[in-house]
Parts: sequence; structure tokens; C-alpha cells
Amino acid sequence: MHDQFQAILSRIEPVDQSLRATVQAHLDDLTKPRGSLGRLEEIAMKFAVATGTATPVLEKKKIVCFAADHGVAEEGVSAYPAEVTPQMVYNMLNGGAAINVLARHAGADLDIVDIGVNHDFSDHPGLHRMKVRRGTSNMVKAPAMTQDETIQAVMTGMSLAGKAREDGYHLLATGEMGIANTTPATALHAVMLDLPVESITGRGTGIDQERLDHKISVIKRAIEINRERLATPLDVLAALGGLEIAGICGLVLGAASVGLPVVVDGFISSAGAVAAMKLSCKVSDYLFFSHLSNEEGHKAVMDKLGARPILDLDLRLGEGTGAALAMQVIDGAIQLYNNMATFSSANVSEKQ
Amino acid sequence: MHDQFQAILSRIEPVDQSLRATVQAHLDDLTKPRGSLGRLEEIAMKFAVATGTATPVLEKKKIVCFAADHGVAEEGVSAYPAEVTPQMVYNMLNGGAAINVLARHAGADLDIVDIGVNHDFSDHPGLHRMKVRRGTSNMVKAPAMTQDETIQAVMTGMSLAGKAREDGYHLLATGEMGIANTTPATALHAVMLDLPVESITGRGTGIDQERLDHKISVIKRAIEINRERLATPLDVLAALGGLEIAGICGLVLGAASVGLPVVVDGFISSAGAVAAMKLSCKVSDYLFFSHLSNEEGHKAVMDKLGARPILDLDLRLGEGTGAALAMQVIDGAIQLYNNMATFSSANVSEKQ
Repeated sequence: MHDQFQAILSRIEPVDQSLRATVQAHLDDLTKPRGSLGRLEEIAMKFAVATGTATPVLEKKKIVCFAADHGVAEEGVSAYPAEVTPQMVYNMLNGGAAINVLARHAGADLDIVDIGVNHDFSDHPGLHRMKVRRGTSNMVKAPAMTQDETIQAVMTGMSLAGKAREDGYHLLATGEMGIANTTPATALHAVMLDLPVESITGRGTGIDQERLDHKISVIKRAIEINRERLATPLDVLAALGGLEIAGICGLVLGAASVGLPVVVDGFISSAGAVAAMKLSCKVSDYLFFSHLSNEEGHKAVMDKLGARPILDLDLRLGEGTGAALAMQVIDGAIQLYNNMATFSSANVSEKQ
Repeated sequence: MHDQFQAILSRIEPVDQSLRATVQAHLDDLTKPRGSLGRLEEIAMKFAVATGTATPVLEKKKIVCFAADHGVAEEGVSAYPAEVTPQMVYNMLNGGAAINVLARHAGADLDIVDIGVNHDFSDHPGLHRMKVRRGTSNMVKAPAMTQDETIQAVMTGMSLAGKAREDGYHLLATGEMGIANTTPATALHAVMLDLPVESITGRGTGIDQERLDHKISVIKRAIEINRERLATPLDVLAALGGLEIAGICGLVLGAASVGLPVVVDGFISSAGAVAAMKLSCKVSDYLFFSHLSNEEGHKAVMDKLGARPILDLDLRLGEGTGAALAMQVIDGAIQLYNNMATFSSANVSEKQ
């Protein structure tokens, strides 16, 4: 399994930067002042270069929402009880969650993946049953997962990216559902990006100051107890991660390995993306950070990565909601690139 | 004509704030942590209150793009020659401009309005021929328009809003095309919001530093020469405005008078919106500022208004492009409001 994982990693190619000149020439020939579409031009450039063509196609889009439980929830770090994870999965399967509405709005398909919920689901057409285990261990007492489990979760994400490529998708997005998952995400960001726990721990779904202080101490203890086990990015993901976060990491790596761009949702998805970036420095050219989350630490994470998210709407819901909205902006950028008239074709005078 | 204008102004009602409690209760019953949809919740609230119902409908959307020429273009304040205004109108009529692409993407209809282009257009199904005059006078030599012309342009916008309401539209957006129109827009912002010309004058479609300095001096001269004529908001609009800006002002006022929310595009549209806000303090409850333009002064304008635009994509194209993109976000917010499951219906546990 480890060999297969390494094989996929090694298939990630750097993007072909030589395409930039052709793409830029086309952008500059569109009937608008040069650069006046601002970040939409940057987005079109990035998408074209990531997909390796100056004539990009963006029709089929998919959001992959990974659900999992967290042993650390028993420490009382979340405003919601752990049973909300399966309840929200059922809500998604019934089409009633925010991500269902926004996926439809974005014209994107939605996959719900049980990668580690502490509940047995029956077969359902909208559900991928790919459980690695029923939730993680409590990371203040032991590593959240073994390395084998971590690799299995990562490879689950990788396989979904490969399948999406085969099915003709042009753009993927990440999403997640897992009560207490800002806690492992914060621990991962702190360790992987060397950021202070105090300054990046936030209120998640809405805890008060007392529980926030408690959450900070839980994260610090988890890092402390696992200190000896944090040698490689996979070790960090295993000790302090979550199954959905490892799945997201795998989706990102798998997508990059087949030349598919990925829209990264918010704070938790970013932890999966950062783990992927640690495992392969080439993936960042395939990533769009969709939105600046209202979760306290996300700005520090984005700043550290030098990333400027597409949207800033104070969202703190996860599920892939910010990614779904950003997909529409990316879609708009590609439609402009493909469908605007050029100066010569439209008989419009150029700049004096 | 002045009486009719005053009659429409007097029909603008303050929104019914008592609706807020009902709307908030529904938002809080949706299956998500309270407030976790951030600005999408604020947007849904604003739209519901503006349209006077806790069960808002957003299906039919229209972008109204006003085109006009500017006498001040002869001062050499733009990077593009004035003939680009009619050329771009033809481009829009042929479906090749950025706004055509983004209107389609947003599922919005698009009206192109010749409210003052210095060119005679033939009949075209996509064109509203509502020319008030062939461009404004050069505002460094005389007032841009007479007060009668200004009122006629404002009432043109008002009539289009009234027609849109009759035609069953639920949301309007503003757009414009007019070579040199950042110059009058800057003059208007400077006078109406008491902002220093130097700090809010930008490069428009892309002028160099020398021409920027020249543009600043032109705007200052225009304000100086018209100083005695700036008593009322209508006077300011007449002396330093543009026909498309007056049309936007009218669209905003007309929309508010029939309870239709309006999405304001960028820097130039904001000048029309600010004029409308000066004419009736009640219109702001009907306005969504779509995006923070890359045009230098827009941030100062938004800050002065206490407005936080929905998007920040470094756009500086106008036409309604930012408004079209923001319409999709507003649409998403209303779809969430209308289509998410509630805690009770979905059997999801509430916060502990």
C-alpha cells in the first residue's frame, strides 16, 4: 500500500509554465482593458496552466465531502454532540444541508464519503461507503490513527480523484463534515506551518470563551503527547489528523497526479491541502483556495501559504460551501476566457 | 417632469424592520450552526427585508447597462479613444463583451441602454434607444448637463426599474459603458462624499502616471469651474455627472420606489448609487454593493459609506461585471434560505 501511495506521489508533474505566454496573449486580446478582469484573469491562467492547455474546458464539476468522527470530541471541544456527524450525513443524503443547495447552485455533482463516521450507514445511492475505521482515537491519549490507516484514508481520496478524472470531471472541490474537526485541523496547522496554537484556535461551530480555553489546552496536550511521533508529514497526519482530513489530502494529491485542479474549502480542508503540499511541493499549482474562513486561524494559515482566497464571506460551516461558491467564480473566469470577443473580431479600437 | 420625479422619490418607503425577527428565526432553524453562513445570512436578511417578505423569491434577474459619452474625454483623460463607447455597445449587442458572458453565467437578462452615446444606432432587439443627448458637455468648460437633461436621464433609469417590476423581475443590477467615465465619477464622489480628488483618482482603463496627474488636474478644474452650481444633489449630478451615471441613479431610485433590490457594480455605478442615496436616504436598504473595484478611490468610497462589498476580485472593467458575479452569491444566499432543511425536519441535534 505504501508503494502504491509513493507511486501516485511520484506521478505529480510540475505544471508547464511555458503555456503562460499563450494564455496571457489570449487574455490580452479579449475586448477589455488589459488586466481589467483582475483576479478572474489570474484564475483563468491558473486553471489553464494546471490543466495543461490554452483552450481550457470547465463543464463537469464535483464536490467531494468526506465525513468522519473524532475521538477527541470526548474532550468536549465542540458545541455539538458527536451524533451530529451521522445526522448531518443523513441530512446531506436527503438533500437538506447547505452543501446540497450550493452544489446544485454551482451545477456541481456532490459525493458524500463515509471515510470514518462512528455509525453504520446502509447503502444509499449518494453515499460512498469507504470507512477506514469508526472515528479516530482521542489524540490527547494516543495518536489519532496508525500510519497504515492514514495511508488508507489518503489513498481513498486519491482513488476518488482518479475516478473523477475517468468520469470526465474538470474541476474538483473538497468538503468535510465531522464534529470536533477544527481541533485536529488546528493541531495540524500549528505543527505543519509552525503557528502558535493560541493564535489560531477558534470557536468552530460556536463555543464560548471557557470552552475555547479548554480547546487550546487540549490541542497543546495532543501535540505534546505525540511530540515524538511527528517526524514526517504522514506521521503528523496520523498523530493529529482526522480521517476526512487525510481523505482531503489524498483527493488533492490524486487530483494533482492526474492534472485536475481542486478548489479547497475552508479551515479544515486547508489542513488536508497543507498536508498534501508537505507531501508534494508541486500540488500548489493545482489548488484554488476558495474562501477566507471566519474560523480564527484561517487568515494566519493563508498568510503563511502566501495564498489569497477567492472569497471572503465570513463562512465557518465547512461541508464544501465556500468551495461551491468559488467554483462559480472560477467557472465565470473560464467562460470569459472562452467566450468573449477579441479586439480584432469585434472591431474595437485598442488602447491609444 | 420635475413633479413626476419628485412623486417617484416620495414613493420610496423605508423597509419594514419588524420582519427581521421572523427572518432571523428561520435562518437560525436551518441545519447549520447559528451565523455560520456569515455574510450569506446577512445577504438573505437584507434581500428579504428589502422585498418585504420572510419568504423571498429570487428567480428573474436583470442587469441594466447604460452607455453614454463624455465631453471631458476631449481632455485626454482616458487610455481609450471615445469611439470605443459605440464600438463596445455593438460588441455587447453581438454578445461578445464580458458582461454578456457573465450575465448568461448568472442567469440574468441584460438590457443595453443608449442613454447618451455620441453615435446613432439603428434598431436592435437588445438595445433600448433612450438617448437624452449625444454625450455630455466638457465639464471643465461648462456643466456636463442641464438640470432638465439630468432629470430626463434619471427618469429614464426610473422608468426601466418600473418596467422591470411589471415584468416580474426580483433583482436588478447596474452596469455602464462610457469612455472617460471614471473622470465624472471621481468628481462626483469627491464632491458628494467630501473626499480629496488626489486620493480617489485612479488609472481607469489604464493610464500612465503623467496622464493620471493630468486627470487629477482636470477633475479639480471641473469642480472649480462648477463650484457655484453644486447646491443640490441634482445640481452636482448635472454639473459633474454623466448620462449613464444619472441613469444608474434613476434605476436605483426607481427600484427602491417599487421595492426591488439593486446590485451596484463598481466605481462608476457607485457614483450613481451615491447620488441616489443623497436624493433619498431610504435607498441604502435596497442596495447591495457588489465588489470592491481595483479603481483607486473605490475603497475610500465604500469606507465612507460604511459598505462592505460582497466580492473583492480586483476588477476594474465596469459594464456590470462585478454585479453579475455578486448576483450569483445573492442567489446562493436566497437558495440556502429557501431550500435548506430545518433542525426539526431533519432530526439533527441542536447545540449543547
